[in-house]
Amino acid sequence: MSLLGRSLLDINQLKNSDVEELFSFSKKLKQLKPLPLGHKVLGLLFFEPSTRTRASFEMASHLIGVKSLSLDPSQSSITKGETIEDTALTLQALGAHALVMRHSSPGISEKLSELLKIPVINAGDGQRGHPTQALLDAFTILEERGAIVGEKVLLVGDVKYSRVARSNIQLLKKLGAEVAVCSPSTLKDPYLEGVYQVANLEEGLRWATVCMMLRMQVERQMGYEVPSLKEYSRRFGINAQRLKLFTSKGILMHPGPFNRGVELAPEILEDPRNRILAQVKNGVFVRAALLSRIMGVDMEGMKL
Amino acid sequence: MSLLGRSLLDINQLKNSDVEELFSFSKKLKQLKPLPLGHKVLGLLFFEPSTRTRASFEMASHLIGVKSLSLDPSQSSITKGETIEDTALTLQALGAHALVMRHSSPGISEKLSELLKIPVINAGDGQRGHPTQALLDAFTILEERGAIVGEKVLLVGDVKYSRVARSNIQLLKKLGAEVAVCSPSTLKDPYLEGVYQVANLEEGLRWATVCMMLRMQVERQMGYEVPSLKEYSRRFGINAQRLKLFTSKGILMHPGPFNRGVELAPEILEDPRNRILAQVKNGVFVRAALLSRIMGVDMEGMKL
Amino acid sequence: MSLLGRSLLDINQLKNSDVEELFSFSKKLKQLKPLPLGHKVLGLLFFEPSTRTRASFEMASHLIGVKSLSLDPSQSSITKGETIEDTALTLQALGAHALVMRHSSPGISEKLSELLKIPVINAGDGQRGHPTQALLDAFTILEERGAIVGEKVLLVGDVKYSRVARSNIQLLKKLGAEVAVCSPSTLKDPYLEGVYQVANLEEGLRWATVCMMLRMQVERQMGYEVPSLKEYSRRFGINAQRLKLFTSKGILMHPGPFNRGVELAPEILEDPRNRILAQVKNGVFVRAALLSRIMGVDMEGMKL
Repeated sequence: MSLLGRSLLDINQLKNSDVEELFSFSKKLKQLKPLPLGHKVLGLLFFEPSTRTRASFEMASHLIGVKSLSLDPSQSSITKGETIEDTALTLQALGAHALVMRHSSPGISEKLSELLKIPVINAGDGQRGHPTQALLDAFTILEERGAIVGEKVLLVGDVKYSRVARSNIQLLKKLGAEVAVCSPSTLKDPYLEGVYQVANLEEGLRWATVCMMLRMQVERQMGYEVPSLKEYSRRFGINAQRLKLFTSKGILMHPGPFNRGVELAPEILEDPRNRILAQVKNGVFVRAALLSRIMGVDMEGMKL
Repeated sequence: MSLLGRSLLDINQLKNSDVEELFSFSKKLKQLKPLPLGHKVLGLLFFEPSTRTRASFEMASHLIGVKSLSLDPSQSSITKGETIEDTALTLQALGAHALVMRHSSPGISEKLSELLKIPVINAGDGQRGHPTQALLDAFTILEERGAIVGEKVLLVGDVKYSRVARSNIQLLKKLGAEVAVCSPSTLKDPYLEGVYQVANLEEGLRWATVCMMLRMQVERQMGYEVPSLKEYSRRFGINAQRLKLFTSKGILMHPGPFNRGVELAPEILEDPRNRILAQVKNGVFVRAALLSRIMGVDMEGMKL
Repeated sequence: MSLLGRSLLDINQLKNSDVEELFSFSKKLKQLKPLPLGHKVLGLLFFEPSTRTRASFEMASHLIGVKSLSLDPSQSSITKGETIEDTALTLQALGAHALVMRHSSPGISEKLSELLKIPVINAGDGQRGHPTQALLDAFTILEERGAIVGEKVLLVGDVKYSRVARSNIQLLKKLGAEVAVCSPSTLKDPYLEGVYQVANLEEGLRWATVCMMLRMQVERQMGYEVPSLKEYSRRFGINAQRLKLFTSKGILMHPGPFNRGVELAPEILEDPRNRILAQVKNGVFVRAALLSRIMGVDMEGMKL
C-alpha cells in the first residue's frame, strides 16, 4: 500500500512490507553522494545571543548556495542535560559539513575541533578570539585605505576583554600595520606585546589612519571596571569635536552593535569617515569566501 | 596551503598568503551580480510576536524563490542597546533586498523607509495600519463575492485600536464598497469619516453582505475598555442564532488569530459562509505578488 | 505606476490600478501548480522543545528538496488564545503539504489528522508514541546487526512514560525481534504484553544482542517515582563493568539526548558497541524516505 498522502500517527499503522520498502529506500538515500537535491549544510551553534554574526554567516551561506541549520540552545536538548560536546556530535551526525560556533568559554571551539571530523569555525569564544571579524576588518581597511602595510590602527576601549581586539591586533600586525591601543587603565591587557599605548584619545587620533572603536560590554563591566558609562564616554567616546583631530582620509570602524552615545556620539554616524556599514557588508563576502574554501563548495558555475 | 577541511579557531592559524587568497576571492564574490547561487533575500524584522503574518511572508517568499532572513529581536543585539534604525541598516548592509517589519510604534516603518535604500513593507505598526492584510481581505471579497464595488462590509469590534480596521476601511472605500462599523462605545474611532455606525450587531448583520470580525486585543483592553470578555461576546460575538440574520450568500471574515468563544462561537467555524482560511490562503498569493513586484523578482520562468 | 523598489507603509499609497494589477497577478500565482520556483513545504509544529527530532526533520526535508516552515508556538498566536486546531488549519491554509508535530498530549496528532487534509506525522505525542524514532531504531538494528528477526532487544529504564519504548516495542515485535524490559518497579508498564521482564540489568545484558537505553525524564520523574538519579544510575545505568556482561558483537543504543553519568557512564561513549550517533545519522535518511513517500516528492532526478 502506498504511503502517499497518509498520516503516520502510530507505528502500528505500518505493515511489515511498508517498513521494508522504506528501509530499502532509506539505504539508497544514504548511499547517495553528493546530496541529490539539497546543498551542503552549515551547522550554527550559538550559545551567546548574536544578530550580526549569525545573520552574516546565514547570508554568506546563502550566497554560495549552502543551507544553514541553526540549533537554538535555549530551545534545545541542552536544557535536558546534554553536554556541548554531545550537541556538536549530534549536529555532525545529522549531516552538517562544517560548524560555526559561539560560546562564552575560551577553550570550547578548540575542544570541539579535536572531537569532530568536520571543520569548526570560531565565531567568538569568550575573550579569546573572533577570527572572521578580524578578517572582515582587515579586508575593509584594505578596500578603504588601499593597503594594510604601514597603516596606523588605533583600537579604543576595552582591550582586555575584547575578543575582537585580540584577533584584530594579531592579524593587523602580521599584515604589516602598526597598532596602538587607548583604554581605561582597568581595561588594559598587560600581556599585549608590540603595541603602542597612547596616553589619551586625542593623541591616538592625531596619530592614527584607522580608528577602531571597541564595543563597551555594558552588560559585563559596569560598576567595577568603569565608574559610569557617562564617564567612559567622556574620556573614550568619539564625538564631532574629537574627530577634528583625525585625518580627513582616515576611516572610523566599530564591530557593532554599538551603543549610541557611549562609544560614538550620534552625529558621528553621518561622518564621511564612518565605515561601520561597510564592515557589515564586507563580512558577508569574507565569510562566504572562507566557507567556500573550507567546505569545498563547487563554485564553478560562477565562472570565477 | 589549502583551507579545505581546516578549522579556523584563532586568527594566528592563517598565513599571510592564506589571507591574501581569501581577500582576493572575497573581492570577486563582492563584484558578482546578481547573486550567483542564492536568490534574492527578504529581511524580516518582527518586534511583535506573529505566527500568521510572518509565516505568510515566508511562504510568499518561498513561492517566488526568495529567501527570507529573519532577525529575532528578542535574541538579538537589540538587547545590547542597538537602536531599531541601526538594526535595520545592518540588515540592509547584510544584503536584504527588501524589509518587512512589524512594530508596536506607529511611525517607525515610515522612519525606516526614509533611512533605508531598500523598500520597506509595513506588516503592522501599532494601531496605524496593516496594508497587506487589507489587500488580502479585499482580494478575498473579490474572489468570494465577485466584486468589491457595491459590497456592504460590516466591521465588528475594536475599531479604535485595530490597524486591520484602519487599513481595510481605507482600501474598501477606495475600491467602491460601503463600510459600516459596530463597536463598543469605548472602542469607537471618533475620527472615522464616511463610515456608517450601526446601532447593534443585529442591525449590522441584516444590512451587510460581508461581515468582518476584528480581533479582540485581550492582552491590551481587558479591565478598562470592556467590562469582561463574556459581556463583550454577548453583545459583539457572532453565534449561530445571530448569523440567521445574515444573508445566506454573505461571507464571514476574521484576520486571525481569533479567540474561540469570544468573537466567534465555535459552531460558526462550520458555517458555509466562513472564509477565514480562504483569507489565510489568499494572503500568501497576494504577498507573493506584492513582493515580486516590489523586489523585481524575475518570474519569466513561470510563463505567466 | 510600477511598484518596483517602492515601500508600502500605508494602504493609501496604492492607487486603484495598482491594486487591480496586484490582484490579477495574485490570481495567476494562485492558479499555478506545481509551485513555480519553490519546492514543497513541510510544516513543523513543535509544542515541546526538541533539538534532535526537529533538526532531523529539517535535514531530511533539505535532503529531498523540501522546504520546512516552522511555527514556534512560544512566539506565536498560541499565546494570543488560538487553539492548536486553528494553528494547524492555518499552517495547512498557508500551503504546507504535510505536518510534523510534537505535543505533550497523547490524542492530539490523531485529532489533527482527522481535521486536516494534509498528512500528519507524529513526532512524539505525550507518552503514546514516536513512530519515526522506532523506524530509525529498527533501521539501525538492521544495518548494524544484519537482521531484526531473532534479535534480542533489551529496553532499559522508564518503560511506563516513554513513547520511544512504546513505539519500539510494537515495531520490533512485528519485525520478529524478541523484546525484554528492565525498569524500576514504579516505571513498569502494567499493560505490556508479550514482553519478557528481566529481574535486573545484569541478567538483561547477558541475554541481549541489542541494548536500548531509555532517556530518564529527569524533568518529570524525580522525587516521586525514582528516589534519586544516583540511585537510578546505580541500578539501571550502564558502565564499563556492566558492559562486560554484554556480547562483544552487541550494539548499545539511546534515543538521545542522554544524561551523561545517569543512563550512561561517560566511558561507555567510547565503547565500540555504542551506536548512538549512527542512530542520529540514520534518522535523517529514514525520515527523508518517509517524507518523500508521504509527500510524493519527485525523486526522479536522483536516478534511484
